[in-house]
Amino acid sequence: MTNPTIPPNTPPAGQGQLPLAGLTVVDLTRVLSGPYCTMMLADLGARVIKIEHPDGGDDSRQVGPFVDGESAYFASINRNKESIALDLKQPDDRKVLDKMLETADVLIENFRAGVMEKLGYTWAALHARYPKLVFASISGFGQTGPYRNRPAYDMVVQAMGGLMSVTGEAGGNPARVGVSIGDIGAGLYATIGIQSALLKRAATGLGERVDISMLDCQVALLENPIARYSATGGVPKPLGTRHPSITPFDMFATRDGFIVIAVGNDALFTTLCTALGREEWARDPRFATVPARNEHHAALKEALEARLADATTAEWEAALEAAGVPHGPLNGVPELVENAHVAARGMLLDIGIGNGKALRVAGNPVKIGTADALSGVRNPPALDQDRARLLAEFRV
Amino acid sequence: MTNPTIPPNTPPAGQGQLPLAGLTVVDLTRVLSGPYCTMMLADLGARVIKIEHPDGGDDSRQVGPFVDGESAYFASINRNKESIALDLKQPDDRKVLDKMLETADVLIENFRAGVMEKLGYTWAALHARYPKLVFASISGFGQTGPYRNRPAYDMVVQAMGGLMSVTGEAGGNPARVGVSIGDIGAGLYATIGIQSALLKRAATGLGERVDISMLDCQVALLENPIARYSATGGVPKPLGTRHPSITPFDMFATRDGFIVIAVGNDALFTTLCTALGREEWARDPRFATVPARNEHHAALKEALEARLADATTAEWEAALEAAGVPHGPLNGVPELVENAHVAARGMLLDIGIGNGKALRVAGNPVKIGTADALSGVRNPPALDQDRARLLAEFRV
Repeated sequence: MTNPTIPPNTPPAGQGQLPLAGLTVVDLTRVLSGPYCTMMLADLGARVIKIEHPDGGDDSRQVGPFVDGESAYFASINRNKESIALDLKQPDDRKVLDKMLETADVLIENFRAGVMEKLGYTWAALHARYPKLVFASISGFGQTGPYRNRPAYDMVVQAMGGLMSVTGEAGGNPARVGVSIGDIGAGLYATIGIQSALLKRAATGLGERVDISMLDCQVALLENPIARYSATGGVPKPLGTRHPSITPFDMFATRDGFIVIAVGNDALFTTLCTALGREEWARDPRFATVPARNEHHAALKEALEARLADATTAEWEAALEAAGVPHGPLNGVPELVENAHVAARGMLLDIGIGNGKALRVAGNPVKIGTADALSGVRNPPALDQDRARLLAEFRV
Repeated sequence: MTNPTIPPNTPPAGQGQLPLAGLTVVDLTRVLSGPYCTMMLADLGARVIKIEHPDGGDDSRQVGPFVDGESAYFASINRNKESIALDLKQPDDRKVLDKMLETADVLIENFRAGVMEKLGYTWAALHARYPKLVFASISGFGQTGPYRNRPAYDMVVQAMGGLMSVTGEAGGNPARVGVSIGDIGAGLYATIGIQSALLKRAATGLGERVDISMLDCQVALLENPIARYSATGGVPKPLGTRHPSITPFDMFATRDGFIVIAVGNDALFTTLCTALGREEWARDPRFATVPARNEHHAALKEALEARLADATTAEWEAALEAAGVPHGPLNGVPELVENAHVAARGMLLDIGIGNGKALRVAGNPVKIGTADALSGVRNPPALDQDRARLLAEFRV
């Protein structure tokens, strides 16, 4: 269990610093897209001061499941942050925020577009008063365009952005991606935008305005279906577990279960055929090239499953491992969190929640030099837990 | 149509520069994860020199669909890049790469872990010779850990990483996310890693080693199912279009079609009830709070669909729009690429492909200041198209 009294992002003596050490982020975001972004920044060494509404704080504190009344949803994405409750409609509380912005590097918010302006925090005003400040916004549809004032959540942009229309069983209903990729995608692009602005600031000395739209981010993720539709006019549809343009790239039945096989080029396909004892397939004109295999994907799947039925998943895994063919099992969350490789990569962290219980959460996948080992995790904050210290530091 | 002779990332006179202008990325990556990362960097202003194998170049040039024999798959993610064909096993070609690295800021590759070392490009050697160089690798499983030498493609990590196990119809088979989120996710985290290293370099003057594992990135995307499993022990499963912890957050039938409604907090739920003329639901103990609604999700869906059957999707869209309730239609790719808001956000670009045809592709969702308007798009390169100019520039 991590000790919650460890100051955030303090590197052990004698080692290097986390890459974003020295940067301060003032974080007005709630729920997921913004908090995911600021978790990334915090994991990479930035100081993140989370400003929450005094009336219950971040909405996601009310989202289950709960451990001793504390939200696991919230805990999963708010480690390494400080918390203070401020009401931005109250003049005294605004003064505290303004004081923080004098020295902050980044201000980030994910209110509906227009809310910050109503509070008086326009980009023009912020840039004039704090010229070095990067001001990033995440909203459903962005700060411009006809939908700019519409509200959105993950589900709305997954549906509007087309991702649901290409996900699900072949011939079946559309399915939501099983994680909130509408929010997390926006959080990742926002992180890229903030870092880009900071890199530009290193040259110019001036902050920048970063405008991230959740719907834009879905369009960006949909690059391949958009290009396919543009090239052919065919409407991309759900294909179950199959890739639309690469074959074999699918889940296949074995004698006792399933195996995923992913073969992206002709050389690997020859390797696969050899490993299966079916060298002749590599010379079959239906299967010799990527486009040919893609056209004859149903015939190839039938042939593959007829052969794969001769042995168990474990036996085929061993054979494909030896041959160097990309393959893998279908893991559920329990298998994933018990996987030795995942643990060896530091991708599971135990943080404190509730009455000293440990909650296992996903780690940081951005591994930079030796810095990863430095990221002593600070537990997710209780609402307003850092008030006294922050008010003393940012005295108005 | 964009003129392919425009030099990449040249801002119009009198305006600011793209945020990553002045950075040079030497790009050894193929297919998707790496090229997606370097497209982001190029869109944001970096110069990207794509080094391809002389024997056919990037594998994805062979992946369909095709326009006049040119891959739309490749074109969608390789704009704004220069191309030169080099064989890294040939001494003369290695000298060209080495010369580029003398002034480059970033080297990125996505070979199987170990390939760069076999070619002699270890981090130790690179860092000693080019101390400012950031060296980023994307691989299936990372540079460390028991699986480090295993190959992977998108499909493998989507299956191993648990994402497929939570995607699909409730009670049905797992489904692959309809885009290659295993690759694109890794490309996004790699972009964050590279930018983090560049920000650290601004302080230290020294390059860093960035190690991105596609499987790690799937674990990071799975943060919520991991936290839920850790908190409750319940195994997360596919839920069709429903959110696991927030209700109503789903697709619902109307009189003539479907509508997505996403309500993330109690205040919005009250607003929804009023818009539907069912104020009493907000006081119903089954529906009054996020956890209560989540427990009674089936009853609430039944009640909602009974009411939504009274009007059409268009009528309910107008009512929810007026009330400010997050909602949206289920769009396919054709509706998405014809959407006026998507166009207004600059999220669709026309690039040249084949015999001067236009291919419509997804734009850059990272909008920074006025810089987005500057990103005059350079068409995806033909294999080795910039050879003469690059050899003259990097004379050995």
